[in-house]
Amino acid sequence: MSDASAPGRTPAQDIAAQVEVFVRTVVAPFEKDPRCGPHGPEDGLVHELRGLARDRGLLTPHILADGTHLSHADTAPILRAAGLSPLGPVAVNVAAPDEGNMNLLGKVATSEQKARFLNRLLEGGRSAFLMTEPAEENGAGSDPALMRTFARPDGNHWVISGRKTFITGAQGAGVGIIMARTDPGDGQGAATMFLVDLPDPAVRIERILDTIDSSMPGGHAVVAIEDLRVPADQILGAPHRGFEYAQVRLAPARLTHCMRWLGACTRAHEIATDYACRRQAFKRRLIEHEGVGFMLADNLIDLKQSELMIDWAAKVLDSGLHGTSETSMTKVAVSEALSRVADRCVQVMGATGVSRETIVEQVYREVRAFRIYDGPSEVHRWSLAKKVDRDWRASQ
Amino acid sequence: MSDASAPGRTPAQDIAAQVEVFVRTVVAPFEKDPRCGPHGPEDGLVHELRGLARDRGLLTPHILADGTHLSHADTAPILRAAGLSPLGPVAVNVAAPDEGNMNLLGKVATSEQKARFLNRLLEGGRSAFLMTEPAEENGAGSDPALMRTFARPDGNHWVISGRKTFITGAQGAGVGIIMARTDPGDGQGAATMFLVDLPDPAVRIERILDTIDSSMPGGHAVVAIEDLRVPADQILGAPHRGFEYAQVRLAPARLTHCMRWLGACTRAHEIATDYACRRQAFKRRLIEHEGVGFMLADNLIDLKQSELMIDWAAKVLDSGLHGTSETSMTKVAVSEALSRVADRCVQVMGATGVSRETIVEQVYREVRAFRIYDGPSEVHRWSLAKKVDRDWRASQ
Amino acid sequence: MSDASAPGRTPAQDIAAQVEVFVRTVVAPFEKDPRCGPHGPEDGLVHELRGLARDRGLLTPHILADGTHLSHADTAPILRAAGLSPLGPVAVNVAAPDEGNMNLLGKVATSEQKARFLNRLLEGGRSAFLMTEPAEENGAGSDPALMRTFARPDGNHWVISGRKTFITGAQGAGVGIIMARTDPGDGQGAATMFLVDLPDPAVRIERILDTIDSSMPGGHAVVAIEDLRVPADQILGAPHRGFEYAQVRLAPARLTHCMRWLGACTRAHEIATDYACRRQAFKRRLIEHEGVGFMLADNLIDLKQSELMIDWAAKVLDSGLHGTSETSMTKVAVSEALSRVADRCVQVMGATGVSRETIVEQVYREVRAFRIYDGPSEVHRWSLAKKVDRDWRASQ
Amino acid sequence: MSDASAPGRTPAQDIAAQVEVFVRTVVAPFEKDPRCGPHGPEDGLVHELRGLARDRGLLTPHILADGTHLSHADTAPILRAAGLSPLGPVAVNVAAPDEGNMNLLGKVATSEQKARFLNRLLEGGRSAFLMTEPAEENGAGSDPALMRTFARPDGNHWVISGRKTFITGAQGAGVGIIMARTDPGDGQGAATMFLVDLPDPAVRIERILDTIDSSMPGGHAVVAIEDLRVPADQILGAPHRGFEYAQVRLAPARLTHCMRWLGACTRAHEIATDYACRRQAFKRRLIEHEGVGFMLADNLIDLKQSELMIDWAAKVLDSGLHGTSETSMTKVAVSEALSRVADRCVQVMGATGVSRETIVEQVYREVRAFRIYDGPSEVHRWSLAKKVDRDWRASQ
Repeated sequence: MSDASAPGRTPAQDIAAQVEVFVRTVVAPFEKDPRCGPHGPEDGLVHELRGLARDRGLLTPHILADGTHLSHADTAPILRAAGLSPLGPVAVNVAAPDEGNMNLLGKVATSEQKARFLNRLLEGGRSAFLMTEPAEENGAGSDPALMRTFARPDGNHWVISGRKTFITGAQGAGVGIIMARTDPGDGQGAATMFLVDLPDPAVRIERILDTIDSSMPGGHAVVAIEDLRVPADQILGAPHRGFEYAQVRLAPARLTHCMRWLGACTRAHEIATDYACRRQAFKRRLIEHEGVGFMLADNLIDLKQSELMIDWAAKVLDSGLHGTSETSMTKVAVSEALSRVADRCVQVMGATGVSRETIVEQVYREVRAFRIYDGPSEVHRWSLAKKVDRDWRASQ
Repeated sequence: MSDASAPGRTPAQDIAAQVEVFVRTVVAPFEKDPRCGPHGPEDGLVHELRGLARDRGLLTPHILADGTHLSHADTAPILRAAGLSPLGPVAVNVAAPDEGNMNLLGKVATSEQKARFLNRLLEGGRSAFLMTEPAEENGAGSDPALMRTFARPDGNHWVISGRKTFITGAQGAGVGIIMARTDPGDGQGAATMFLVDLPDPAVRIERILDTIDSSMPGGHAVVAIEDLRVPADQILGAPHRGFEYAQVRLAPARLTHCMRWLGACTRAHEIATDYACRRQAFKRRLIEHEGVGFMLADNLIDLKQSELMIDWAAKVLDSGLHGTSETSMTKVAVSEALSRVADRCVQVMGATGVSRETIVEQVYREVRAFRIYDGPSEVHRWSLAKKVDRDWRASQ
Repeated sequence: MSDASAPGRTPAQDIAAQVEVFVRTVVAPFEKDPRCGPHGPEDGLVHELRGLARDRGLLTPHILADGTHLSHADTAPILRAAGLSPLGPVAVNVAAPDEGNMNLLGKVATSEQKARFLNRLLEGGRSAFLMTEPAEENGAGSDPALMRTFARPDGNHWVISGRKTFITGAQGAGVGIIMARTDPGDGQGAATMFLVDLPDPAVRIERILDTIDSSMPGGHAVVAIEDLRVPADQILGAPHRGFEYAQVRLAPARLTHCMRWLGACTRAHEIATDYACRRQAFKRRLIEHEGVGFMLADNLIDLKQSELMIDWAAKVLDSGLHGTSETSMTKVAVSEALSRVADRCVQVMGATGVSRETIVEQVYREVRAFRIYDGPSEVHRWSLAKKVDRDWRASQ
Repeated sequence: MSDASAPGRTPAQDIAAQVEVFVRTVVAPFEKDPRCGPHGPEDGLVHELRGLARDRGLLTPHILADGTHLSHADTAPILRAAGLSPLGPVAVNVAAPDEGNMNLLGKVATSEQKARFLNRLLEGGRSAFLMTEPAEENGAGSDPALMRTFARPDGNHWVISGRKTFITGAQGAGVGIIMARTDPGDGQGAATMFLVDLPDPAVRIERILDTIDSSMPGGHAVVAIEDLRVPADQILGAPHRGFEYAQVRLAPARLTHCMRWLGACTRAHEIATDYACRRQAFKRRLIEHEGVGFMLADNLIDLKQSELMIDWAAKVLDSGLHGTSETSMTKVAVSEALSRVADRCVQVMGATGVSRETIVEQVYREVRAFRIYDGPSEVHRWSLAKKVDRDWRASQ
């Protein structure tokens, strides 16, 4: 465990060390709390954990009291530390989708919108980002061009109707950001983001999906939006720029996912290592069998490579670049490396690995979704192949 | 769907075709039944499904009315058909551990034992196989030499004490086969298998483990055996031959696992194919994207290879050989191939793939455990490496 | 080594056993012959080896004296036995491209063509199949639709001009099959195959390519065809049906590649096993290190799966089906499995594995090309994905 | 291509940029020179290339005129630039084994030894490192404890006898570093390194091995050392500390291998990209097929990860730590990542990829050996597993 008061640390490293101690000693014991359900920790547990974080000055630790967002490079060790428990990001309020929503509002919202919506999130209020649409209706899954939720102007209001799915945290959220198609009159079509208070009778949660992951409060909802009226001043940023803002949100959000899951898989690796170093089979400790030791060696490599990729992409974002390709590369590499890490941890632990005696089973399940959330690997590879082509043309 | 009454089929193929129709049309709709819980289908659902199978003459379809067990080669398509739904093997009574227990009793039990214990299983009674012991106590996980459950003779009885874990179906079982160390007096140590009626106050279910899989009735239990008295005539086969019988059970049991899971992954592949052939993204149907189409092409290959390996190993067993290496090779190859298949199905389906909207998510979770159950891949590879060495020595 | 005179064998198994003994004892010692050059064994060596095979009645062993071609299933063990040495297929005259050319002529040629061209090949004459065209000219590589060699009618002759590349065995061939575009007058375009005697001044070998493989006599040539006049009766089969015949040749040719390379990788595995079972490192024999033993265990699995896939596809072809998908599946699976096998053999043997002290290094290099020859894996996966789509549509 | 005179560069970056221009424009055209043989470039070509580098002040660019060795971090981009051609490292004198030998002498040699031996190397003389012993004699392959070359004291000389294999560059070397077992009198055994002038009649080159790689001048030799007398002042550093110095040499040598091969695979990727962006198949350019584009996207990721791992390990070494684990992790990760990159480049280019029309085929062959040279991956994983265990014990 880190020593949270070591000298010679940067302020960000100091925060990360404190978060690590908090998550390992205070949060981790709640992993067996019966309020951890299949649709994520219940609201009561979320409030209790956030209270504990608030007491220690560790709530929303990557955004300073004056509203300054730490650099992406400085955020990395903090979110990794938070991720050491599946409950950690929720506890210190750096979980998806809130973390990404706070980042987006910090960049795009007006002062009034910040005062009304962002501050609630900074203090631990929950939010949702309503973009993805049901596949069975050929709505916008990985391909936002297929969006079928529309907003039409009506006086100084807009009226939104459509259906969204896989909306993380919609159940229990106080703030929603809704993405809807709007018509700028140029025949091209566009999308706009709207800030709304939740719950609202016009935003009906049809059901909570049962999913392979279980760490996100409120789970993932199917939401019907039926003639929701929103005043024009609740447009986030400017109208018709929704796809642009989605990109603003996406690149860093992709990266913070990597940071949190790196923490989760680091912990899983520690648990598997401890298991392998204690347990005997066939006359030796497991770790002394090359078949097991090699898996843990490969974990070392995958974890280190993930960390290096994250730090590299974070520096690219901090330099002011969009970082679309760099975060795509990192997302693909890290989500696949961590899937391998979690898979090896399960295998090292045998039957214990597929049971919920430890969090390894949960980490394994959750990290599977990471290869899909925020763009499946195939979409990122497709976009990277386009970049290869584009760069080649530029070099001719 | 197969036509169950096609001419030119062998009797076994005819049974397989009937099971397939039954599983696809009658059993599959129960997959959304709320009685499918995290610890497997509840007993009420199991009874209802087995009743439906019994009505159609499809209960325990691989063992004929006269007690004849079909050959392994003939069993393969039947168990594959049963596996097309996670509920299928339970419905037609070919699920683990009952199927393996019936096979073992058929080979080793006395006529009296068959009348008393086996018949109940053939008619749909549930059973458990109590061998594995807790890792934290350094008991017998993958390495049976570590077994710490002991049976000591006491007159014409034996008294058994110990602790078992990961005992599939113990909760709700009517018959138990308990493996315990016994002392044949030669200083070498040995193990003996005992047949017992369950429930019994001396066989206490401490708790049901939460596990990544959820299709086995009764789940996986931790069981404490405290001074259980068993009459000597309930020894299965001869005393002190438990490890030998465990091998008798293991090789075919490994293979029937492969058969059932091949069915499950075949179904997952059908669901993913249907998804990819209907859904659009980036202006084409998913199947028309090479990134998706190649995954389904690889599934075709992995499914076919799995089928071929199973059929090969089944013929080896049918020829009367032990088939230890052949079933090890098959178990490693099939469990890893099917893990890839299930993983690709999830990926093809994106967010839908990690939700419980279809059984793909369940198949993905369950098949993960298959690389561990009945010996983790590493133990099989270790034993195959020994065979390589042994064969090399023999050739010198 | 097999006993070539064991009772109870089928005639085909008997031939395979004789070929195995011949290749292991007579052919293998020539592997160190200095006439094995970078462009394959020199003609003198080829003649010597074929003479040795002829003396033992083992030349062209898969085609009986009366011209009957053994079934594909019966051919499999013979070609696998031949492949046990990189020189084996050449020695017994079952190497590419001759083997595929003989098969094609046997199916499509007229009696006159058989007498004139096929018989020479059966007796050990060499041939070439001139289809592939240079990529840099955007000719027909993997995509035959791009073919730019044309044949135009001129009285009762045709005049062919174009450029071909990667023409295996063109140097030294006595018979050529040239594929050229012809115009059936329907505006669709087509191709025709022509049988020609070689060498011919109008078929100029520009150069022999340096390639990663080195077992094919004559290497791979770039060939310029300049106004080659061919009498109309040298059209193979019917005019304009070249693409159809190419398919007739391709499916079985793909499979015989698999058979030969399975033999090569089986031998490499034997060599690596012998190395691992003798050599010590870190206090144990290599085979006793799991890191090495597991690689050899995986070889066992990959070799067995390759054999099973080949046998399955062979039976499909023998049943009279085209087997396009089945041989595609087999080619992808086997070429990739054998690449893994060869790679592991190299790794097991360390520095010796990357030297030419044994044939393992050669097998590793050659098998790399197998993932490209006869259609790269990607083209086969693409075609399998189309089949998935087609089958899905048919099921709707 | 880089602009060698861009402002704002560090001196090391400036050197790297100059090396890149030199290698791409001056060295690369020699890749088709007939003096590039199977045992590496001939001495005449080596001298010509080194003369060209010397003319431009680019010979031994990572060691400054005053003898200062650049930091490992600063060396990385220079060696990567050199590696852009298989002839590049030889041309600018940063190739193995000379580069590693220069590094070792710089750290361990006396001033007299530097004047006599090191200076020759800095100016472009060739050297050899004689450690590895033949496997068939159970000598020191991956396991130096098995060393069977002995040096015994004889007055103020030592007399060395033994047999070495895979000695890169022995043919043509002017300086040799010989590792031999010596007896410090403590019953433990040890090894000592000796500096010798070559050629010497007592150091007989038995033969040059034929190997999969072909870029190292002099190839890899089997060397017999027969009663070679060496004055005691030619002991490198102190007697009996050979294994320690071998470690001093190994960690950085491992890393410089990574740097050079990263350059080689970067170039292969550029060639494959150019091919894929120009060539058509099935109605689109290859790059527009996801099956091809995804491979190039994966190359981007693997190349970037390799770069990041190298930079990380270089900084660890620069910090003064031994970096044994870090360079092991990097060597395993980079050699395997670059193997994948080279394999994909071959596959993207189809038949052209397995021909010597470009250097891709050579890079593919050479990089295969990299998973074995300087310790096969398995030895590194074994040592990393020991570290996992050691760290776990320390944490208890």
